[in-house]
Amino acid sequence: MKCLSCKEEYGSRDAGTCRECYEEASETEEELKREIDDLKSKVNFLRFFWGPPLLSPPLFTDVVLVASDDHSTASCQPVPVPAHRAVLASRSPVFKAMLEIKMEESLSGTIKICDVSYDALRAFINYLYTAEACLDVNMACDLLVLAEKYQVKHLKTYCEKFLISNLSWENSIPIYAFAHQHNAKSLVDAALSLIMDNMEKLRKREEYAELVEKEPRMVVELYEAYLSKQVNTAANKGSTPKA
Amino acid sequence: MKCLSCKEEYGSRDAGTCRECYEEASETEEELKREIDDLKSKVNFLRFFWGPPLLSPPLFTDVVLVASDDHSTASCQPVPVPAHRAVLASRSPVFKAMLEIKMEESLSGTIKICDVSYDALRAFINYLYTAEACLDVNMACDLLVLAEKYQVKHLKTYCEKFLISNLSWENSIPIYAFAHQHNAKSLVDAALSLIMDNMEKLRKREEYAELVEKEPRMVVELYEAYLSKQVNTAANKGSTPKA
Repeated sequence: MKCLSCKEEYGSRDAGTCRECYEEASETEEELKREIDDLKSKVNFLRFFWGPPLLSPPLFTDVVLVASDDHSTASCQPVPVPAHRAVLASRSPVFKAMLEIKMEESLSGTIKICDVSYDALRAFINYLYTAEACLDVNMACDLLVLAEKYQVKHLKTYCEKFLISNLSWENSIPIYAFAHQHNAKSLVDAALSLIMDNMEKLRKREEYAELVEKEPRMVVELYEAYLSKQVNTAANKGSTPKA
Repeated sequence: MKCLSCKEEYGSRDAGTCRECYEEASETEEELKREIDDLKSKVNFLRFFWGPPLLSPPLFTDVVLVASDDHSTASCQPVPVPAHRAVLASRSPVFKAMLEIKMEESLSGTIKICDVSYDALRAFINYLYTAEACLDVNMACDLLVLAEKYQVKHLKTYCEKFLISNLSWENSIPIYAFAHQHNAKSLVDAALSLIMDNMEKLRKREEYAELVEKEPRMVVELYEAYLSKQVNTAANKGSTPKA
């Protein structure tokens, strides 16, 4: 027989689907692709343009954000990042509460964002307008912290996914600790799983000693997870682990 | 052989694909579905809440729109629809130009929208915030007109698609005329195609006589398209049409 998709000959042992199912599957694929195109154009429509503030400042802004520990501009005034109250309030319940009631930020039109660099603040605001960010591991960590603080769930998930796909044995211990501190559950699980696959090497790592020193509870949790996994694996094999 | 998808037996005459292609196709489908989920959550994130203005007015608005021929409120003041300059300007180049320069609308903070009902205006503004509208044929026509006037391409396409899927022999002539007036190319083509499939009934329709009276050029275009189609069909059959 000749495969309708790859056009290669195959025997009945390598048979996949009947013709009807093949045709249905092709239609489904076309439909899904059309849906993707529709959604992409919707995303483009709903995005706000939010260019580099200095080159083409956004129109009709009514608030500015200021990074309060911007080392790069420590000697001069921090660069304010212009934005719209409506956008901030629509994306973050924390900004909404801050701007709705007559708090200092609302009255002065200036929101100070602590412990963040100018670049991270700009990337954060840009994400609120466009649902896009250009990430590396450091930036993903910075944005995850901001996303948690200002309750921007969509951004937090986005950063978690990025960090999960960039996990390695080298960064697994610090990322595990970081994820723990910021309640990033799926990142904790992913880092944990990677560490548990390398338990024999764990104690040789410098970061391990640091973690025992600073966050012994996290280390306990790690060992507890490892033990549970061992018990489960043994139970699945139909035997109990050796004492 | 047993189909891996529907689990039914089939013979080699009804064979579709080999196992490898089936497995690849299943993976592709899963990937497309994941992409759809991601895009849907992006759309939700980028959407603005824009509730019924009277019940829960949007926050931090800086402009109002007024429907200038709202018959339902002819005896009293028209109900203003609050909005954000930034949203209007980001969705429509016409609003952008109007608000950026010091035109009357920009200075007063009130934009009059002519020849539109309050309901259509609200649906229009809601679409600018959410990329969603609850349509029937009349509303789709009203919004298409606004979309053309304010150059909101995404909404125009959305209305065209809706009207195409709601075309019938009964509404094909008025929709053909409407689409023509508003440069809705794909809607013109779809209505034309439906009319050409029913040419023998065309002259009996009341709307036909009206169209000849009011827009004879559109009728000429219809006949020209019909003739081109006949010539093409004949050419594809390898013969010339009878004189």
